[in-house]
Amino acid sequence: SLSSPQIQFADQKQEFNKRPSKIGRRSLSRSISQSSTDSYSSAASYTDSSDDETSPRDKQQKNSKGNGDFCIKNIKQADFGRREIEIAEQEMPALMALRKRAQGEKPLAGAKVVGCTHITAQTAVLMETLSALGAQCRWAACNIYSTQNEVAAALAEGGFSVFAWKGESEDDFWWCIDRCVNVEGWQPNMILDDGGDLTHWIYKKYPNMFKKIKGIVEESVTGVHRLYQLSKAGKLCVPAMNVNDSVTKQKFDNLYCCRESILDGLKRTTDVMFGGKQVVVCGYGEVGKGCCAALKAMGSIVYVTEIDPICALQACMDGFRLVKLNEVIRQVDIVITCTGNKNVVVREHLDRMKNGCIVCNMGHSNTEIDVASLRTPELTWERVRSQVDHIIWPDAKRIVLLAEGRLLNLSCSTVPTFVLSITATTQALALIELYNAPEGRYKQDVYLLPKKMDEYVASLHLPTFDAHLTELTDEQAKYLGLNKNGPFKPNYYR
Amino acid sequence: SLSSPQIQFADQKQEFNKRPSKIGRRSLSRSISQSSTDSYSSAASYTDSSDDETSPRDKQQKNSKGNGDFCIKNIKQADFGRREIEIAEQEMPALMALRKRAQGEKPLAGAKVVGCTHITAQTAVLMETLSALGAQCRWAACNIYSTQNEVAAALAEGGFSVFAWKGESEDDFWWCIDRCVNVEGWQPNMILDDGGDLTHWIYKKYPNMFKKIKGIVEESVTGVHRLYQLSKAGKLCVPAMNVNDSVTKQKFDNLYCCRESILDGLKRTTDVMFGGKQVVVCGYGEVGKGCCAALKAMGSIVYVTEIDPICALQACMDGFRLVKLNEVIRQVDIVITCTGNKNVVVREHLDRMKNGCIVCNMGHSNTEIDVASLRTPELTWERVRSQVDHIIWPDAKRIVLLAEGRLLNLSCSTVPTFVLSITATTQALALIELYNAPEGRYKQDVYLLPKKMDEYVASLHLPTFDAHLTELTDEQAKYLGLNKNGPFKPNYYR
Amino acid sequence: SLSSPQIQFADQKQEFNKRPSKIGRRSLSRSISQSSTDSYSSAASYTDSSDDETSPRDKQQKNSKGNGDFCIKNIKQADFGRREIEIAEQEMPALMALRKRAQGEKPLAGAKVVGCTHITAQTAVLMETLSALGAQCRWAACNIYSTQNEVAAALAEGGFSVFAWKGESEDDFWWCIDRCVNVEGWQPNMILDDGGDLTHWIYKKYPNMFKKIKGIVEESVTGVHRLYQLSKAGKLCVPAMNVNDSVTKQKFDNLYCCRESILDGLKRTTDVMFGGKQVVVCGYGEVGKGCCAALKAMGSIVYVTEIDPICALQACMDGFRLVKLNEVIRQVDIVITCTGNKNVVVREHLDRMKNGCIVCNMGHSNTEIDVASLRTPELTWERVRSQVDHIIWPDAKRIVLLAEGRLLNLSCSTVPTFVLSITATTQALALIELYNAPEGRYKQDVYLLPKKMDEYVASLHLPTFDAHLTELTDEQAKYLGLNKNGPFKPNYYR
Amino acid sequence: SLSSPQIQFADQKQEFNKRPSKIGRRSLSRSISQSSTDSYSSAASYTDSSDDETSPRDKQQKNSKGNGDFCIKNIKQADFGRREIEIAEQEMPALMALRKRAQGEKPLAGAKVVGCTHITAQTAVLMETLSALGAQCRWAACNIYSTQNEVAAALAEGGFSVFAWKGESEDDFWWCIDRCVNVEGWQPNMILDDGGDLTHWIYKKYPNMFKKIKGIVEESVTGVHRLYQLSKAGKLCVPAMNVNDSVTKQKFDNLYCCRESILDGLKRTTDVMFGGKQVVVCGYGEVGKGCCAALKAMGSIVYVTEIDPICALQACMDGFRLVKLNEVIRQVDIVITCTGNKNVVVREHLDRMKNGCIVCNMGHSNTEIDVASLRTPELTWERVRSQVDHIIWPDAKRIVLLAEGRLLNLSCSTVPTFVLSITATTQALALIELYNAPEGRYKQDVYLLPKKMDEYVASLHLPTFDAHLTELTDEQAKYLGLNKNGPFKPNYYR
Repeated sequence: SLSSPQIQFADQKQEFNKRPSKIGRRSLSRSISQSSTDSYSSAASYTDSSDDETSPRDKQQKNSKGNGDFCIKNIKQADFGRREIEIAEQEMPALMALRKRAQGEKPLAGAKVVGCTHITAQTAVLMETLSALGAQCRWAACNIYSTQNEVAAALAEGGFSVFAWKGESEDDFWWCIDRCVNVEGWQPNMILDDGGDLTHWIYKKYPNMFKKIKGIVEESVTGVHRLYQLSKAGKLCVPAMNVNDSVTKQKFDNLYCCRESILDGLKRTTDVMFGGKQVVVCGYGEVGKGCCAALKAMGSIVYVTEIDPICALQACMDGFRLVKLNEVIRQVDIVITCTGNKNVVVREHLDRMKNGCIVCNMGHSNTEIDVASLRTPELTWERVRSQVDHIIWPDAKRIVLLAEGRLLNLSCSTVPTFVLSITATTQALALIELYNAPEGRYKQDVYLLPKKMDEYVASLHLPTFDAHLTELTDEQAKYLGLNKNGPFKPNYYR
Repeated sequence: SLSSPQIQFADQKQEFNKRPSKIGRRSLSRSISQSSTDSYSSAASYTDSSDDETSPRDKQQKNSKGNGDFCIKNIKQADFGRREIEIAEQEMPALMALRKRAQGEKPLAGAKVVGCTHITAQTAVLMETLSALGAQCRWAACNIYSTQNEVAAALAEGGFSVFAWKGESEDDFWWCIDRCVNVEGWQPNMILDDGGDLTHWIYKKYPNMFKKIKGIVEESVTGVHRLYQLSKAGKLCVPAMNVNDSVTKQKFDNLYCCRESILDGLKRTTDVMFGGKQVVVCGYGEVGKGCCAALKAMGSIVYVTEIDPICALQACMDGFRLVKLNEVIRQVDIVITCTGNKNVVVREHLDRMKNGCIVCNMGHSNTEIDVASLRTPELTWERVRSQVDHIIWPDAKRIVLLAEGRLLNLSCSTVPTFVLSITATTQALALIELYNAPEGRYKQDVYLLPKKMDEYVASLHLPTFDAHLTELTDEQAKYLGLNKNGPFKPNYYR
Repeated sequence: SLSSPQIQFADQKQEFNKRPSKIGRRSLSRSISQSSTDSYSSAASYTDSSDDETSPRDKQQKNSKGNGDFCIKNIKQADFGRREIEIAEQEMPALMALRKRAQGEKPLAGAKVVGCTHITAQTAVLMETLSALGAQCRWAACNIYSTQNEVAAALAEGGFSVFAWKGESEDDFWWCIDRCVNVEGWQPNMILDDGGDLTHWIYKKYPNMFKKIKGIVEESVTGVHRLYQLSKAGKLCVPAMNVNDSVTKQKFDNLYCCRESILDGLKRTTDVMFGGKQVVVCGYGEVGKGCCAALKAMGSIVYVTEIDPICALQACMDGFRLVKLNEVIRQVDIVITCTGNKNVVVREHLDRMKNGCIVCNMGHSNTEIDVASLRTPELTWERVRSQVDHIIWPDAKRIVLLAEGRLLNLSCSTVPTFVLSITATTQALALIELYNAPEGRYKQDVYLLPKKMDEYVASLHLPTFDAHLTELTDEQAKYLGLNKNGPFKPNYYR
Repeated sequence: SLSSPQIQFADQKQEFNKRPSKIGRRSLSRSISQSSTDSYSSAASYTDSSDDETSPRDKQQKNSKGNGDFCIKNIKQADFGRREIEIAEQEMPALMALRKRAQGEKPLAGAKVVGCTHITAQTAVLMETLSALGAQCRWAACNIYSTQNEVAAALAEGGFSVFAWKGESEDDFWWCIDRCVNVEGWQPNMILDDGGDLTHWIYKKYPNMFKKIKGIVEESVTGVHRLYQLSKAGKLCVPAMNVNDSVTKQKFDNLYCCRESILDGLKRTTDVMFGGKQVVVCGYGEVGKGCCAALKAMGSIVYVTEIDPICALQACMDGFRLVKLNEVIRQVDIVITCTGNKNVVVREHLDRMKNGCIVCNMGHSNTEIDVASLRTPELTWERVRSQVDHIIWPDAKRIVLLAEGRLLNLSCSTVPTFVLSITATTQALALIELYNAPEGRYKQDVYLLPKKMDEYVASLHLPTFDAHLTELTDEQAKYLGLNKNGPFKPNYYR
């Protein structure tokens, strides 16, 4: 049944390009963000001006123990990277707790994990946790820009087989992935993927490898979508865990994270004062709810547009006027899209905005704002800051476009480590679950993390807040018909 | 398959008494609430001191057209009741819109609806809407206290066969229900129930009637639970619609309604100033979230207890300290339970509370606070106001217990008509859907209202807020893979 | 210089009638409020149906010790009143602390205080505190409706010379005041007034009494205004303390108190749901700020009107659209006036409001809404509840007018004891200050309470919140140029 | 009386160094901030790598019209600077409106203004406004780091005599000031100062100049304090206007500005997630109120410390627990000082903080946190980002110290142009008022801007918010005893 996966898969991929999904693109954006904030945050940092231009693929590198099974930018940066990892450890107590609790039993003993994710200090904490739990790991980057070279160096120095550097070519990208899986005498039995490229590569090049693989853990919307399509087509040959849709991750990535990042992204790019500003937020899902709450709290006057009457009614009850975009487009100071839709803000709207109006996107991809429509001869583009363009109309009206319509929160602010911690913990637990599940629990299908493990991820993050959970008494558990240790809610609970 | 439903059903009922469900009791509470607020709101109102003490069952009554197929308290009160109905109509625009939109096609033509609900002005608007859509209706009260006699009179005067009055005996209660269904030459083909008593009665006494019945619409948790049990036992012989769990109703009944009623209930009973008060809220579900948000906004310092780590993490992110009850019980000014659990506040907690602490319940039933434990000889109870007791310890410490631990928002505040409007509209649509569904769409099972109709209910309530919904373009709908008219979200979306 | 005070004073009074001040009218409103809420809160309460109709002035009354120097409704109600006082004591910890701290030194020993205020449980706590500090007191009511008869009975039973009952005639009113001051062998040396009527009476009838009077403490805006006019005219013959304008009282009476009472007042009268409602608040002073903050927090959409550009800019920065009333009058669901101005809402506005619009006043008096303009033949008034009128236009449009345009928070909600506690404590301290001030500290002028005493009042209320104040170190005090014990801010600080 | 001003003045200055005032230091901080954010915001900006190292004082420079009466970095940068000024103009509508309204009458015709302020695009808009109103201007920088060289170039190109560049030595600083005043054939008649250095220089070097000077407008706390001391000592020889204490400026600089900048400053430096964090804010004045409100809205749990019982009571009513710092120091994640005091956070507190605790100052100067106490051998300082130090204890505990205890909002975020606009408009009006005041209106004293002009500044900023002010009717103005055009509040109103 794996006879011609590559053809079928290629089609899917093409389809995807037509509708780039939120988190898929997010991956890309995040890397851009991190590189850009690096340059801000660490003037005194680790860029090494004497870095030669030689491709890492052409270098001979060995770590201090003589091991050379990796390919990175510069092993000398390992010390700096180690410090970054140590700082990240402090903010990822859940993974550290997991190390402690599960270290004795080594639940991943025998696991051979091949991974393809962003390579950052947070990922390093995850990898070293997997290792502490017994796994062997080989790793590539899921994005050509996002690798923190110093962290990659620290991992290589620590004995991990890492193949990644910042600024890979596309050819480098696939070469690195191949080096992870195409090894003599080592065959992976678990896949941890972010975007589906690693899975895609194995399907295409080494389909037989799936015979030994116990499961796939996938984090991105894009990758998850591919897996569902494979499953639907009957081509999925191992169980897969959809980490993206776990409730904990969703709530934190969207509602709570956006509540803070909308403010941060707008301030860093425009220094705008929020008080008294009129803002229209397109879309009142979790992201829109977060944006609206934050701006209202800062003294902005917020309007909402919606297509779904239920979300619309929620917006009303939360104190926002529900309008059509056209009704307010002339008067607002800021336009924010969070719909997941395309062409929500089009040229006609942009033409009618007032001078100085700020336009940005918190939704997904760069489809929400029709940026292409602004690339016409009569309009002048002026780059005034990193991520900030002024589009100037013939009558001198200026529109302030942020991040060229890409995701604001990922382009112009940072993702809190706390959110990354939740994701990484969920990934680790998903690997443990799939690796240890008794035969038959999981079929060749895509699964959500069991509710109980979702709750476990949450519980591991409570000590950060010095939060004390109440336990059910036996009598209460019986009364409610619940197990004292959970799960406490049905799977669909949000 | 209907051979012995009554025995099985009786067992279920008994089981229910052990765990009285939230909305089941709510029905009761609402009626108490309404009667109590009546006495407040309408000193100049319609109580007729010359009312004789004769039982309505013993009276001969006819309306002005000579029709006598009803049994109510006093047909002379019809005018007053009509005005109440007219006022309610103004606040239930969705039902009025439904009348207008659907009146031409009479989607309930031929429907014979037997109903058993609270008989209030809002219900009257529902009944007259059903009638306008083509249905014939016979109606009894689902609660012995909640009937507004004047409204019942107006309905009887309007030609409805209503059997209900305030202060029925239990025997009256079943007699009224029987009068609704046991009619010569008329057999119901739809059931609208609130609590399951009507359904129960038909199962028990007239099981053959189900042959002509197209479906049951049930609003209460209790009744829904019974239906699920029947279904599980294979004894449900018609399709049933669970109106209680529709997303619109849930959000409004819990989050938004409680956000307002917690303040209202506390003020009306205790005149407490919220600013600076320390409050512990037990449970951070929708009800708890509403209570916490309102109190925080009024300047209270709020602590939360939770058993579910996911809700606990939400509480943390929303800015509430997560504690165990014992940690703060000595210092708080107000204790509010919203867990749905039992014995959340027990005597030990009550013993440790400080002087003047207010204790109340927003969750369900009277199980959350162990009120029984306060009925001991060394404690003195003092009724200081309606719904307010001081419990006095030997050392003179006073605890202020509200509504004897029953639901505060229903005992001591009013349910906004807007919430009732959403419920009534949902009921009407559920009846239309079940009555008109093509053969085979619904089996002998319990269903949620289709998402699309849920969205329709919401959309009917938007004009109240002068809210303008955005419509998808064809291109956008295609991009999102959605129908332009919805549904816009998956069924499980909350 | 006191030769003809009555003429001059009468003129002032007339002038006053033209511009009735906020707190002056408030006094009246509060009493109405309390009587109305009494009837709500205590169905099981102390109304004695066997009360005879004899005027108290015609009764012979003696307390249990044989003392008859008082005139009240019914001495038998003393026990009930005592309990009310005890409950009030629990909520007025500052006065109780004052009793304890100052009792040893009796700072009011020798003081003969004549008072004219509302006679409520809270006033009783004040009077008994003054007594504990050494003062002798004689007391009349400042309002013909506001006296709690039971409390007056308890005071009489406790030995106070009280002359007051609920429902006095105007003649009774002045008779009671006269009985307080016109006593053989007793002459007051301190005045505690609320509204200026007592002061007025002494000026008019017993001007020579001022020779022994050390000072006046006045709480109402009306009374304070009169005092300033006397002072301006050179007719004020003793020092007077303006208690009304102390910062603590102002902030609590206006901002914090209104933040809660606007919600309470609207709910109790109309059961309106706040979420999604459009509201216009006229005036953005302290009262307006409180109303806006509360309604915004409950999910209303709030518009503000202002005449002062500074307050207007604050409204903008706080997130409210600043409009003229005409711009939004057709669309709003609720209109609230808090301007202190007259004819803010006039017939023209009322004509344009939409059906069901609620109109109420939180500002002062009944001048803000031109209620008189609604008394025209084509409009029908319908009293639907206590304090709630529907005004019906010929086209059936209804406007919901609350409290006939009088102060909503005082007519339809209760004043929290905490606020009354702050006022009463301030009054007590003002009496102590004036009584003990060395010769020359205060001249024949109107004074604000010294900042330090204002801070002391605040500090006495902190324990209620378990609040812990930080103390300056000597070094810090020196650095800031402050005394370690205050005052910490300049007098004008708000 | 001006015989030896320099000696006396020097003493004052010394005194000042002991207690550096908030805004005085602020000036310095702002410039640092702007230079640092420049480097962030404008990678593609105007740094000219070919800039020579020659001192501007040694260069011969002429603008395109041949005028050479200025001394700046590089006249070639004028075009870039002009664009910066144009962008600033868009955000300073009040000044632009002032230009339009007052241009006809030239209220500053004949005015010769010598100024010493930060030289930024916003200042340029002010200067060009003064010029449009008829004034001649000569200008120096009040801070050696804050000059935007490109803006200075644009001003020089436009004909202004500007003497300023970024990176002046102290000697340059005074040389520039001297060049402004020491001109043949030109003598200033108005002073616009920020910090008092210009005023000081004239007192010291050219005391006779004051004979022609009509007044001083001073913006900083430091400068204002000096003026009050001069006045007190009888040495102030012209009227001076204290712009710093105008209510509009105060409210915006403190409450509204800090509400936004606390979030911005923390995010930019630490990327901390606010949700669920425990924060202690020391001081609940305007700044503290702004910080607390913002953090509470973002989901932090906020504790407050206070010394003033009135502010303490406000904190309670606003929903914050009032504690002593010691009570919570072990548990908080963030410590923020806003007291204006010294040694609020001392080594003992720092020793007890938990690992990762963030410490920063929003109050004034660097006195609030005893940073010096951290310069001990056992502690390691690690600079992790610009403005961010980790202080590491021997047991590896890290404290995150921001801006070395200097003002966070000025070091690590930007001052919104809107706030600068209010200040600049106030300065312009103060100049107009002093210059045009009839003889005798102002004496040799320090004045606040008349309330009415304060209101005028506010009104000029309302159009930004599309805010519509209501006007009093004649009848209402009479009723309130107010002029229809204001002032609407007493001078002390805040």
